[in-house]
This record gives sequence, structure tokens and C-alpha cells, in this order.
Amino acid sequence: MSAPLAAYSSYEFMLVTSPAPFVAHLEINRPKKLNAFSQQVWLEFGRVFQQLSEDSDVRVVILSGAGDRAFTAGLDVQAAATDSPFSGDKQELDPARKAKLLRPHIDEFQSCISQMEKCEKPVICVMHAVSIGLAIDISCCADIRIAAANTRLAVKEVDIGLAADIGTLARLPKIVGSTSWVKDVCLTARDFSAQEALAVGFVSQVHDTKATAIEAAQKIAVSLASKSPVAVQGTKELLNYGREHSTADSLRYTAIWNSVALQGEDFPKAMMSGLAKTKPTFSKL
Amino acid sequence: MSAPLAAYSSYEFMLVTSPAPFVAHLEINRPKKLNAFSQQVWLEFGRVFQQLSEDSDVRVVILSGAGDRAFTAGLDVQAAATDSPFSGDKQELDPARKAKLLRPHIDEFQSCISQMEKCEKPVICVMHAVSIGLAIDISCCADIRIAAANTRLAVKEVDIGLAADIGTLARLPKIVGSTSWVKDVCLTARDFSAQEALAVGFVSQVHDTKATAIEAAQKIAVSLASKSPVAVQGTKELLNYGREHSTADSLRYTAIWNSVALQGEDFPKAMMSGLAKTKPTFSKL
Amino acid sequence: MSAPLAAYSSYEFMLVTSPAPFVAHLEINRPKKLNAFSQQVWLEFGRVFQQLSEDSDVRVVILSGAGDRAFTAGLDVQAAATDSPFSGDKQELDPARKAKLLRPHIDEFQSCISQMEKCEKPVICVMHAVSIGLAIDISCCADIRIAAANTRLAVKEVDIGLAADIGTLARLPKIVGSTSWVKDVCLTARDFSAQEALAVGFVSQVHDTKATAIEAAQKIAVSLASKSPVAVQGTKELLNYGREHSTADSLRYTAIWNSVALQGEDFPKAMMSGLAKTKPTFSKL
Amino acid sequence: MSAPLAAYSSYEFMLVTSPAPFVAHLEINRPKKLNAFSQQVWLEFGRVFQQLSEDSDVRVVILSGAGDRAFTAGLDVQAAATDSPFSGDKQELDPARKAKLLRPHIDEFQSCISQMEKCEKPVICVMHAVSIGLAIDISCCADIRIAAANTRLAVKEVDIGLAADIGTLARLPKIVGSTSWVKDVCLTARDFSAQEALAVGFVSQVHDTKATAIEAAQKIAVSLASKSPVAVQGTKELLNYGREHSTADSLRYTAIWNSVALQGEDFPKAMMSGLAKTKPTFSKL
Amino acid sequence: MSAPLAAYSSYEFMLVTSPAPFVAHLEINRPKKLNAFSQQVWLEFGRVFQQLSEDSDVRVVILSGAGDRAFTAGLDVQAAATDSPFSGDKQELDPARKAKLLRPHIDEFQSCISQMEKCEKPVICVMHAVSIGLAIDISCCADIRIAAANTRLAVKEVDIGLAADIGTLARLPKIVGSTSWVKDVCLTARDFSAQEALAVGFVSQVHDTKATAIEAAQKIAVSLASKSPVAVQGTKELLNYGREHSTADSLRYTAIWNSVALQGEDFPKAMMSGLAKTKPTFSKL
Amino acid sequence: MSAPLAAYSSYEFMLVTSPAPFVAHLEINRPKKLNAFSQQVWLEFGRVFQQLSEDSDVRVVILSGAGDRAFTAGLDVQAAATDSPFSGDKQELDPARKAKLLRPHIDEFQSCISQMEKCEKPVICVMHAVSIGLAIDISCCADIRIAAANTRLAVKEVDIGLAADIGTLARLPKIVGSTSWVKDVCLTARDFSAQEALAVGFVSQVHDTKATAIEAAQKIAVSLASKSPVAVQGTKELLNYGREHSTADSLRYTAIWNSVALQGEDFPKAMMSGLAKTKPTFSKL
Repeated sequence: MSAPLAAYSSYEFMLVTSPAPFVAHLEINRPKKLNAFSQQVWLEFGRVFQQLSEDSDVRVVILSGAGDRAFTAGLDVQAAATDSPFSGDKQELDPARKAKLLRPHIDEFQSCISQMEKCEKPVICVMHAVSIGLAIDISCCADIRIAAANTRLAVKEVDIGLAADIGTLARLPKIVGSTSWVKDVCLTARDFSAQEALAVGFVSQVHDTKATAIEAAQKIAVSLASKSPVAVQGTKELLNYGREHSTADSLRYTAIWNSVALQGEDFPKAMMSGLAKTKPTFSKL
Repeated sequence: MSAPLAAYSSYEFMLVTSPAPFVAHLEINRPKKLNAFSQQVWLEFGRVFQQLSEDSDVRVVILSGAGDRAFTAGLDVQAAATDSPFSGDKQELDPARKAKLLRPHIDEFQSCISQMEKCEKPVICVMHAVSIGLAIDISCCADIRIAAANTRLAVKEVDIGLAADIGTLARLPKIVGSTSWVKDVCLTARDFSAQEALAVGFVSQVHDTKATAIEAAQKIAVSLASKSPVAVQGTKELLNYGREHSTADSLRYTAIWNSVALQGEDFPKAMMSGLAKTKPTFSKL
Repeated sequence: MSAPLAAYSSYEFMLVTSPAPFVAHLEINRPKKLNAFSQQVWLEFGRVFQQLSEDSDVRVVILSGAGDRAFTAGLDVQAAATDSPFSGDKQELDPARKAKLLRPHIDEFQSCISQMEKCEKPVICVMHAVSIGLAIDISCCADIRIAAANTRLAVKEVDIGLAADIGTLARLPKIVGSTSWVKDVCLTARDFSAQEALAVGFVSQVHDTKATAIEAAQKIAVSLASKSPVAVQGTKELLNYGREHSTADSLRYTAIWNSVALQGEDFPKAMMSGLAKTKPTFSKL
Repeated sequence: MSAPLAAYSSYEFMLVTSPAPFVAHLEINRPKKLNAFSQQVWLEFGRVFQQLSEDSDVRVVILSGAGDRAFTAGLDVQAAATDSPFSGDKQELDPARKAKLLRPHIDEFQSCISQMEKCEKPVICVMHAVSIGLAIDISCCADIRIAAANTRLAVKEVDIGLAADIGTLARLPKIVGSTSWVKDVCLTARDFSAQEALAVGFVSQVHDTKATAIEAAQKIAVSLASKSPVAVQGTKELLNYGREHSTADSLRYTAIWNSVALQGEDFPKAMMSGLAKTKPTFSKL
Repeated sequence: MSAPLAAYSSYEFMLVTSPAPFVAHLEINRPKKLNAFSQQVWLEFGRVFQQLSEDSDVRVVILSGAGDRAFTAGLDVQAAATDSPFSGDKQELDPARKAKLLRPHIDEFQSCISQMEKCEKPVICVMHAVSIGLAIDISCCADIRIAAANTRLAVKEVDIGLAADIGTLARLPKIVGSTSWVKDVCLTARDFSAQEALAVGFVSQVHDTKATAIEAAQKIAVSLASKSPVAVQGTKELLNYGREHSTADSLRYTAIWNSVALQGEDFPKAMMSGLAKTKPTFSKL
Repeated sequence: MSAPLAAYSSYEFMLVTSPAPFVAHLEINRPKKLNAFSQQVWLEFGRVFQQLSEDSDVRVVILSGAGDRAFTAGLDVQAAATDSPFSGDKQELDPARKAKLLRPHIDEFQSCISQMEKCEKPVICVMHAVSIGLAIDISCCADIRIAAANTRLAVKEVDIGLAADIGTLARLPKIVGSTSWVKDVCLTARDFSAQEALAVGFVSQVHDTKATAIEAAQKIAVSLASKSPVAVQGTKELLNYGREHSTADSLRYTAIWNSVALQGEDFPKAMMSGLAKTKPTFSKL
């Protein structure tokens, strides 16, 4: 197993190793709590993705949970109960003032998780074992989702009396084709398996074990790391833009984007390597 | 079989029963005409969904057709022919004036069917036997679609010389992933089976008979009815919003929505029940 | 094999025949170069689709590549290298001025390919053998995609150091349900087969050979050609509109559209034929 | 003074007269309460605009308040206090359930006022004397705003502890150019005069008295009533659409709209009259 | 007076001269017909703006009408009457088929006029004398509008029985602040003066005569022509984008745009000239 | 003069005092450099607005420049020249890699200035003396703009060879009615006076001196500080939302927003005070 990357040693709950050049493997690292998220965990999660996004030694990120029991069990309900925005003397506030306290709390949480989507490098999410609640919000921010056969997935929020607010309800209808299925799992909060996730297109590969799933992710990651980072990161940016905008707007944005990207050295280098049947090497981005 | 609900006894073509607490079963009730829609039927359809939406004794709606021959055969073509906006002395109008008569006619029809989508409670649509034309427009407004094995589906409008205008063309590209399939069935007006509908994700379950399909729907309905209505109805609202808006807009709307929903009693009640492994009961909404 | 259509005889790389009344079969006709696209090819491609769109003798278009080796191998890389916007004395320009030269170049290329999507008649795209790079951008503009079993598909652009800018990244997330799959193939540039394309819904039929795939396309085409062109073309327009707009905007646009379409002769003619069980014939549109 | 129109005699608070052919004058008719709005008033307001929109004897609407003391003083605060959604046994509801009661209440109120904007005929709003709070929400739904010199205007809601929710905050930034002014009057709730309203473009005419303001409105109304209703109503529709959509979307919608409007008899009739210097008469729409 | 530019000598109705380096003066040149637009005129109008947009010898365009009697009197009604899409044997078509003929006709007309807005160089429109109907559609596509004191303006379309469809209704609500005024002039078709146009912000300068108005336009043009074309053309692009998109989308587009524009030589050159108090010269774009 | 607020004492270039309860006065405090912005200044600017937004002792913010010579002279050009993202060994990067460095640089700058718009409390911007370049980007983020008579304004960026990218081009077309004026000042980079800014609605008040302008701002601020913060902050939020969204979306968002805001104590308190003619006091928010 690869050693932790020095540049990421200050995180308490985020473990970052590098299994191959330009590939970072991020593990949510709180296995005793099934990798559940307290506020401290999500603040670190946001920060580590910002750092990965800016780190020119990283071209692809693999995300998994530490340990065998869970990708993540979602919100740390006990921590949430004791450390609520309404604890202490705030109980007496009127509903408008309580809402005012809640909004930035939700915004911060959403914003930390969204950093994963904003990360300029492709993120491959490996789901395994317990993957419920926030696990779905998080995985919706990945580019490619892979699951181990034992993964137990659920959009669990309805069962704790709330509508999922950290991104599942905003993103799932856009990343899985069957709305009937999306509504089914979001409304009923029922478990679904890795195989079912594959059948509907939520994940694109299922592997026998967590280990083989991570191997598969690394195989993709190594391939992506060898390609032009200008091309790979531009492709991620434009696909995300395309999902959110009209075709006309996307084509226009794409033309502006490529009017500079095509001036980079990667395009001629890759094209020439292709004609010469050699393997190109790309400089950092 | 459960008795008709008194509050819904005034409808001529809408039969509402309650197979379980908080569950309403709505049947399009014109079996001799294959549950086809005349203007009176769609006006009742709009009104009944408005009433179901506001009725705090209802937390889930199951929709099916009465009888074994059809969910619905769609527009009542004969009624449409005799009761057209152009009948009588209006034949001599110029095209601009005819358009002026047609627009509110189409608006009213669209608006009645859209009431089903606007219903704040989840709607599970059970399709069976003949389910063509308007049947597709209607089912596109459901949250979860289930079919009996004998269902015969078709976006039939092209075959009567028009483009489907009551919602199929607006919603189908957003609720089924394969646009190639969507265009195929909408342009050719060909029949497709329950199995094909399942394979592309238009429906999420297929059952042997209408009876077993309805049983399956009731099983989901009973489960949904036992959950926090604040959570369930919020989830429906936010998924529908998410389908129509950018991720950024959806996250913002979600934060506002939950800034009040989280102040309800359901969230702590459900969370405490979860920790205590008891079954919570939720008050009306 | 049917003879070339006289009205389309001036194209060098576009071969148009008519295998059945109102059906046009367009072949990208540069088989020695694997139907690769130089600037002249894409200019012709844009023009031929504009002509097909306006030609009232055409109600459906089938698109394939000429020969057995390729639908198209995409950009003609050699032509692109010698005939670049930066060749000759433009090498010394600053990046802002180079971008200014590149933008209209990309715009023109996008615009030519987009003419296929704008064609008012349904386009059935038959993919076969080599179908990489620009082949995907092109097929994303089709209404219905069919593949031969031997098709080798790839969103190849990343491997030549750029982000696909002729439409794949703008359209693919909207026409295939599984974003995880879309990102996988766009980021890795890996090959995928006809069967995989079918499984994710990118194509809706796979046939044993190019010949049987084209036969299948012709069967659909003949069926579409026999139907009301007012209904068929309206359906295409409204589905494309629906993909790009909110449901509310689409319903409104649909009502305006049908307020004139319903005044045509096709609606009563088709409805009466339906009641009388006769086969209607529709006049040109 | 003209007699009340028989077709509108059933309203308690809406008085409709016809000062000229095809011109309806609607007065908010609760002068003893300064034309303040209780729920009954806004329900009637919504209904009367729906009726005016559909009435082919009406081509233009003038709106004013009855009596000399007020256009309207806005919400009837006393009625609102006694007839609140929370009165009686609903006080004990939790905030999520109270919100559930409030939302349809606000929706209904918004929807009744928005009927004025949806009215297909141009509406000229004559403001006079007290015109505060809801008066601004209402006038934002008019097409043309005219004021008497004595008009006292204010976006008063902040002073009763709430953000204006019946349309002022949604529409004012789109119908007056200076956002600095819009924010000033909305945040401070200060009074502003007819002259100030004219200077910033909120109203387009100011007249000495209510009587002369109404005269001016009638002059415009008579002029509009003499013109092609196809042209006038199309212009209103397209301007409202243009305010809410991108230019590209508006141009597309306009082309569809006019593809039927131009087939009406008004276009050739008006054009020929123009060439012949005669005055055309247009049939009902 | 400057001589016609050779590169633009092939137009029949478009006269292009160059009163100063990098400044083109385009005149609609059909003075005997009050510069009215037949189809041939609008086709030339679209083409000349495309050419001006691409011509690196042009950095600013001034648009006026030839002669003293009119900027333009709008549509050439007589030509329109004889050369209609419905002339000859097309009279017998049904309304759906007539609409099908009309739509591309309107599209083409819109598209030719919109070329003026798409021109990448700033366009200063000098309005004078008769400026009605299409004159407003055209001037809405300009960047800066200047009027001579004798200008007679009117959104005239309602008076010929139609809603303006070449852009006025789509653009005017976005480029003038007072919607009450916009609706007034569009619905009533009344004349308004240069002074009124100035007061509402439709034009930004009024001058005594056509000659002094053109002088003023030239003064601005000469100033713009001396500035960095990268900066000037980028500013136009981003302002047009900003008008049509949300602030968040605009900021993102701006960042991409400037990530290449700032790499040009103009930014350091202009900045250094500023510090050194010298006058920079910019190379062609 | 009021003393600096202790909570804001750590800023080097941001001076915050409190001239009245709940009113904060923020001064850009780098008078020797005409309050020009280096990176450190804009980072502080972003942070201070985030702190003001969250500070429940602040209900209104006044922004001005320190000293008499400038509100701000904009970008500190000398600092920008020495501390560029391309300095040192980065000069050799290709254009794609340079763009990659520039984008986050622009994003950070935009984001710091946008914090002012995101501040939940109203911001009154007092412009005076030199107010060019970035001064306009900044003031576009204010709610209310007031100017001293000696203010010299200019959208100066074109004169340093670039398109303004920190918000002016995105926001100005939305906050001033006359697009002809907006394009004039943005393209020509010319100076304009406080009086001109008032005439077009960019500012809503002009006062003789900086001192009287600040007095006027304080008068508004004191008034706003005395009102319900729930109402005032909700009004700001909904007006900003309204500017960026369709009316339909805004009305929906407003209903959700007020479904909790109306449950606060401010609404009944303000209403009762109104009826009782007493002055209400509102608790912190």
C-alpha cells in the first residue's frame, strides 16, 4: 500500500495516498464511525478537494471509504443531535430566526460536498459496503461511479424525517435516466444493490470485492493520468457545463474554451504522437 | 374491495377508494369507453387531483383505469369530433381567430392533466391493457410507473395526424434516458410492451397481472404512508424542481425549503425513533 | 441499389439516393479516406442537410457512411494539419489574435454539423464499422441511432489532445441516461461496442451487418414517410424543444405550435381514416 | 357615467363599465375601506380578469379604484388579522405544518393578481391618491401605468414586517430601469410621488387629477380598440414573453406565433386600408 | 465625402465608405423608396454585416440611411404584397402548410437583421427623419443609438395588422428601462420624437441635424478605432452575453474569455502606454 | 467621528466604524494609493463583507473610500504588473497552461467582489472623487448608489487593453435601463459625471460633497436599521433573485421564502405597532 502524501498529512479524516504517478487516492478515514460525517469531516472534505483541484501533481482522484464496513454511513446523527445550530440558548428563537441560522449551515454543508464536483480533475468514486444517505449526495458529485458487489445503497433521508438537501435531489434526476426509479428510491428510502445501481446506470461497473473495485478504478485512473491534462480537464468541464445548459449555450462556451485550449502544446503533441505511433508525455497543468 | 370515499362521491368518472390508511386509489372510471377522455373527463381529472393534493387524509395516490380492458385509450375521438371548438358557426373564422379559440382549449386540457404532476403527494401510476395516446401524457405526470404484463403502450398521436400536446413531448425526454428510444416511439407511434418500457426505464416494475401490479403499488403506497409526510412531500417537490432547474438553483431552493421543513416535529421524531428502534407516527400535513 | 437523386448531384462527398418514396438515403462518400472530414466535407454536410430540410419530396433521411470500412473515422487529421487557421504567416500572432481566428473556425464546423439536428425531417443514423471522434458528434444530431454489430465507437478526441468541441460534450449528457457511462467514454476515449451502446441507450437497435441495419432503418423510414408530415415534423420539433426547455415553457410552445398545426388537413384526414380503417395519403409539406 | 356591464353584475367589489366600444373600465369598488383587499376581493379580482380576458367584446381594460381617496390601500390588515390561515386550533402546529398552510394561501393570492398580467387584452392602470403596498404589486401587472398628480405610492410591505410577496419584488426589477431606485423604495418603504414615478419610468404619464388621468387612459384605450385585435394582443403576448426569455428564444417563439397570426384577415385588411387611406374595421377575436 | 470601399462595391443597396481609419460607414442606399426593405435589401443587409464583422480593416461601424428623407421607412409594403410566400398556386394550401412556408421566411428575415447584432465590431446607429417599423427592429441591434432632432420614430407594425416580428418585441424590453413606455409605443404604434427617445434612454444623444448626428457618431467611432480591438470587441461580446444570461453564468463566461484575451499583446501594451503617457498602436484583429 | 469597531480591527485596508446602532460604515482604507486594489486589498474586501453579512449587530452597511481623493482608482496597476500570475519561470508556459493559471486568479478576484452582493444586509455605496475601473464593478454590487457631485466615474478597462471582468459587464446591463448608454460608457471608457449617472439611474441621489453624501446615506441607513431585519433582508434577497430569474420562478421562490418568514415575530409585531401607532423594536437576526 502506498504511503500517505506529505502535502495532505494535516487532515484528520482525509487520507491521501498516491498509488501511481499523478493519481491520488482519497479515503474518508473514520472507519470506527462507519466513515460518518460530522461538521469537521465535511469541512475537511471540502478543503481536501480544493487542494486536490489545485495540485498540479494530481491528474485523477479515486475516492473510497477507509476500512471494509462502509463507504460512508452518511450523517453522523449523534454529532448532529448534540451540535445543532439550535442548541443552547437559541431554542427560543422564532421560526424566521431559526431559518436564518439554518440556511448558512445548509449552505456550508452543500458547498463542502460540491467542492468534489468543482474539482477540476476527474473523480472516480468507489462505493462499497454501507453507502447510504450522504453517501449518495457525495457519489452524485463524482464523474465515474464504480461499486463493489456488497454495496448497500439507500437515499436514506426520508427515514430520518427530511428531504435530502446536500445534492441528491438536485443531481440524481440529471445523472440517471429513469425518473421512475429515481423517485422510487428517493421516496421510499429503500435499499438497493450494486447490481440494481448498474442496471439503471447509476454506477458503470460492479466488481466482486472492494479490492477489485479499487483495482478497476486505478486502471481507469492510470489511463487518464497518461493523457493530455488539457484535454481531460477540458472534457470534464464541458460535460458538466453541458449537463446544466442548453445545447446552444454549451456550443458557444465550448468554442471559447477551445479557442485557448487548442493553442496549448498538447494538441499538436498528441496528434503527432498518434501519427508517429509513439507515446506522448504531457507537462503539468 | 374498499368502499368509495365519501368526499369524492360527486365525480362521475373518477372513483376514489382507500385501500389503506392515508392511501387513495383513484380509478379513471369509464370502462365501457375504455376509459377514454372527453372534456368532462379531463375537467374532473384536474379537479380530483387538486382535491387529493389538499386532502390531509391522503398521503399517497395510486392511479389506474377501471376494468380490465384499458388504463385509458386516450382521447375520446368521437366526442372530440362532435364537440370541437370549431363546430357550428365558427367554421368560417380565419386561421388567426381559430388559433385564438384553440389555444385556451389546449391550455385547459394541459392544465387539467398537469394537476396530477402538481399534486403534492406521490402518485403511483399502474398501467394495464390499452394504454395509448393520452395514457402516456398522463403517466408522464406520475412519480412512479408500474405496469401489468399485458400493457399495450403507444404514443399514438402521430397516427391521428397531430403532435402530442398534452405533455408527452415536453416530459418524456426528461424522464427516460435514451433519446433514441424516445424519438423512435414518438415518431413511429408504434406499440411497445411493458417489458420494453421496463428495459428503457419508463416504468420501474412489471407484474404478471393488473391485480398483482396494483398490489405492488399498494405495497409501496403503504410504506410511503407510514413515513414523515414532511419528508416525503418535500422530496417530491425537490426532485421535480431539480429536474427543471440548474444544480445551483436547486441547491439554493433546497436550502430555503429545508430551513423551515427541518423545524417541523418530524425530523427529531424520526431521528429519535431511529436511534430508539421504535416506529414513529406522524401527524397530518 | 437506387440511383443518385438528380437534385443532389453537385456534391462531391455527399451521395443521396431514394430507396423509397419520400425517403432519402445520405451517404458520407469518401470511402478511401474512411469517410474522414476535411473542411470541404463538413461544408457539404451542412449544405446537404439544409437542402434535405427544405425539400418537400423528402420526409425522412437515413444517414450512413459509404463502403464497409467506416461510418466515419472523424476529423481528417492530415488535412487539418496542413490547412490550419494558423498556417503560413499567422504563426506569429499573439494568443488573443489566434483565438480570434480559431473561434469562427470552430463556429463554422459546429454550425455545419448542427444543420443535421436542425433538419426538420427525422434523421435515422446507421452506424457501422469505424465510428469514432466526429462520428459521435454527428450521430448525437440524429433522431434515431441504429448500429451494425461490427461498429467500433469511441469519443476519441481526448487522445488527440483536445476536448470534443463539435457537439458531443454538449449533447451526450442530454441523450443518454447514465452520466457515469458518458463521463467514462468521454474521458477515457476508449472503444465501445454496438452492444454496449445499445445497453446504455445510445443506440436503439443493433443488427448483424451494415446491410441489415440499413434495412431496419429503411423499414422505420418507410413507416414515417407514410404518416402525416405535419404530425411527424411537429413531433420532432417539439421533442427537441422539450429537451432544451422547462416543462412549462415547452407546454406553452406546444400550444402555440398546435394552434396552427391542428388547422391543417392532416388531423381530420388521419382521424377519419382511423375511424374508417382506411389508409390516408398526405399532401406535401 | 356609463352603466355597469350586465355580464359583470355579479361581482361585489368589481365594477365594470364600458365608456366606449370594446373598452372596459374596471374599478376596485370598496371605497369605504380605501379599496383594500380581503381574500374575497382578490378572488373576485382574479375572476374578473379571467372573464375580461375571454370576453370578445372587450379589447382594452382600464383599471382604477372607485372613489377619490385611493386606488387601493393594499391588504386589508384587519381582515387579514382575523381570517388568518393560523387562526383557531391551528396555532399549535409546528413550523413545517404552518408553512404547508401558508404556501397555498400565498399561491392563491399571487395567482389572483397574476391573472391581470395574463389577461390577453392590454390593461391600462390609472393610479390615484393612496396607492400603497398591494397597489404596487397590482400595477406591476399592467401594461401601461398612468398616475394622477395626487398619487401617493409606496412599496409598504417592509413596514408591516414582511417582504412583498404578491409580485412587486419579482416584477419591479424588470419593468423599471434603475435598480438603485427600485432597491431604495422597496427597502425603505418610503412614499414616492407621481412625478418621481414618472421620472424613473414606473408610470409613463402624470395628469392633474384622477379625472384627467382617466380621460388620458380612455384616449389610449379608444385608440387601441380601433386597431387589429390580432396585432394588439399578439404584441402584448410577445412583449411579455420577450421580458422573460432570451432574445434567441423570443425570436423563435415570435416566428411560430406569427406563422398563424399572419394568416388572419387583419394583416391584409390593415395593409390595404393603409394603402387606400381608409379606416379598417376588424372582426371580433 | 469619402469614396466607396472597393471591397463592398458589389452591393446594390448597401453603400460602404470609410470616413476614418478602421471606421466603416454603412448607408442603407435606396433613398427613392425611403430606404424601405424588400427581400433583396434584407439579404444584402445580412451579408454586409457578416463581411464587416470579418473584415480586420474595420473596427467600428456607423449605420445610417442614405439621403435626407429617411433612415428607413421599414418594410417595402408593395414589394411584400406582390412577392409573398403565398402568391400563385400556394393560395390553396391549408393553414398548417402555409405556416410551414411562413416560418423560414420569417426566420430568414430575422436572421439577416440579427447579423447586425452579431457583428463583432461596435455598431453606432444614426437615426434621422422617417424611422419607423423595421427601423426600430434594426436600431435595437445597434450598440449605441444617436438621433437627429427631426427623427420620426414609431413601432408601426400594429397599424399594418401584425405584431413586430423582426426583433423589436424581443429586444426593446431589454434595452429600455421603462416597460410602461415600451408597451405604450408598441401597442399604440404612435409616433415619438428624438427627444422622447432620449428621455427614456432609447437613444443616448440627439443632435440638430443628420449631419451633426453623423459627426457625433464619427467622433465616437474614431475614439473606438484607436483603442485595443481585443478590449473593445471583448467588451461588446461580454455586454451582449450579460444582457441574456444570469450574473453567475456571465462571470464564468467572462473568466474563460479573458483567460485568453489577457494573453494578447494589447493588455501589456495599453498598460505600459498608460504608465508612460504615450499613445499605443494596436495590430489588426 | 465614530471609533473603529473592535471586531474589525484586524484588517489592514478595511476600516469599519459604526455611526449609529446596527449601522456599519466600511471604508476602503488605502488613501495614499487612491484606495487602489492589490490582491491583498481584494482578499480583505471579500472577507470583510462575509463578516458583515454574518454579524447580527449589523443591519446596514455604508461603503465609501477613505480620504477625499478617491472612492477607488481601481486596480493597483503597478502591483498587478509585478505580482502577475505569469511572473518568474511561468513565462514559458503555453497559452493553455497560462489560461489555467489565469482562470482561478480571475475567479478569486470576482468572488471577493461578489461577496458584497451576497452580503445579506443592504449596502449603500457612496461614490466620490475618483471612481473608475474597479470602482464601477464594486458599486454594481451595492443595493443603493449615492454620489458626491465631484465624482469622476469611468468604466476604464478598455483603456488598459482589456474587457472589464470583475462584474461590470455582467451586471450593468441589468441595473441601468438604457443599454445605449451602458454600451457607450463601457466601449469608450469615457468619464461621466455624478449628474449623468443620476440622469440614467445608475445612482439615485447626488449630493454636494462627500460629507453630505455620506450624511444622506446615513439617513437611509438609520431608517433601514430601525425596521424589521426579517423584512429588510428578505426584500434584498427577493429583489436580487427577481433580477436573475423569470417572474414565475421568482413568485415560487418568494412563496417558499415567506412561508417561514411570516412565522417570525416581526410580522405580527410590526402590524400591531402599525395599528397602535407605536414604534416597534425588533430582535437580532
